Amino acid sequence: MLRGIIRGNIVSTRKQESLVGSKFMEVQLMKNGELTEEYLIAVDSVGAGIGETVLLTTGSSARLALHNVNAPCDAVIVGIVD
Amino acid sequence: MLRGIIRGNIVSTRKQESLVGSKFMEVQLMKNGELTEEYLIAVDSVGAGIGETVLLTTGSSARLALHNVNAPCDAVIVGIVD
Amino acid sequence: MLRGIIRGNIVSTRKQESLVGSKFMEVQLMKNGELTEEYLIAVDSVGAGIGETVLLTTGSSARLALHNVNAPCDAVIVGIVD
Amino acid sequence: MLRGIIRGNIVSTRKQESLVGSKFMEVQLMKNGELTEEYLIAVDSVGAGIGETVLLTTGSSARLALHNVNAPCDAVIVGIVD
Amino acid sequence: MLRGIIRGNIVSTRKQESLVGSKFMEVQLMKNGELTEEYLIAVDSVGAGIGETVLLTTGSSARLALHNVNAPCDAVIVGIVD
Repeated sequence: MLRGIIRGNIVSTRKQESLVGSKFMEVQLMKNGELTEEYLIAVDSVGAGIGETVLLTTGSSARLALHNVNAPCDAVIVGIVD
Repeated sequence: MLRGIIRGNIVSTRKQESLVGSKFMEVQLMKNGELTEEYLIAVDSVGAGIGETVLLTTGSSARLALHNVNAPCDAVIVGIVD
Repeated sequence: MLRGIIRGNIVSTRKQESLVGSKFMEVQLMKNGELTEEYLIAVDSVGAGIGETVLLTTGSSARLALHNVNAPCDAVIVGIVD
Repeated sequence: MLRGIIRGNIVSTRKQESLVGSKFMEVQLMKNGELTEEYLIAVDSVGAGIGETVLLTTGSSARLALHNVNAPCDAVIVGIVD
Repeated sequence: MLRGIIRGNIVSTRKQESLVGSKFMEVQLMKNGELTEEYLIAVDSVGAGIGETVLLTTGSSARLALHNVNAPCDAVIVGIVD
């Protein structure tokens, strides 16, 4: 899993039906507590907001955190770091 | 998920039966809103065209966006960014 | 699979229901016995602690090491290296 | 998905039973039409030969292009680029 | 799939029950026949030994090469290169 800080959100009006209602967040990834120059876009599942440090799950396991486990999504915010 | 701009399309006449009818697009990836030198080829599922900024899902979750969820595909355009 | 040394743990109070009780460990990865500057966050499944050298499984196979195989997790500590 | 040019084939007599009969091709990957220094080994599913430009699917979706969808394979040539 | 040379083995006494009996090998990866500085740890499924050139499958497809297809493993040696 990866840790990072939410930097913004991405708006997409025309998208896959099963992704309607998903909040796409752009996350700046961290490594050992330090910010990197890597970014990933993830769907929020825990009510996280811009500026919060979060935990991300990627790959096919990510969908297990969504209401619709069949949505074509490969990265989800699964926790907010204290 | 990844964001990028569609730069072209790839034509393949001889291909897997289950991919017939798929539009293969070459997408230049972005990071935090800036273009990178990374590219990925994805099947379009939302009617996106060259020059549009799109959202990509990769890995086995990508197939969930296709009519034929058993097509051997690992990257799909799932949304158009506003 | 990857080898690395556990450097710390990540605390997340607000998280996915199915991840409650999981211990998130930050692991510094090794390559051919040498430490690298790469890090990954993994759920512990073998009772490993900070400073121990461990074996990690990533991707969707990782969940098979958890009590709840449907938890949205993509990296698990599956062994402690002797 | 990835595009590349087939550079050679790999011969393996002692291998997993379910991979017997598979043609392993070494493919030099391209990025935006330019060759890179990255290579991947993929099983051919479309009758492609050395020197041809092909389309590759990687990850667990790749197996859907094989006769035996349970073969332990993570990369398949799924099309020949025109 | 990837090609590489087995450089050593990793011993882990305390590990996931389903991995008991697995031989963990550290493999130095090759690219177009040349050694790289990348390494991966894979479970052997074909009786390969140190110094042999092998073919690796990674990701969730790797488990299909194991007796226990539910073992939390993400990389397996599936062939020995002639």
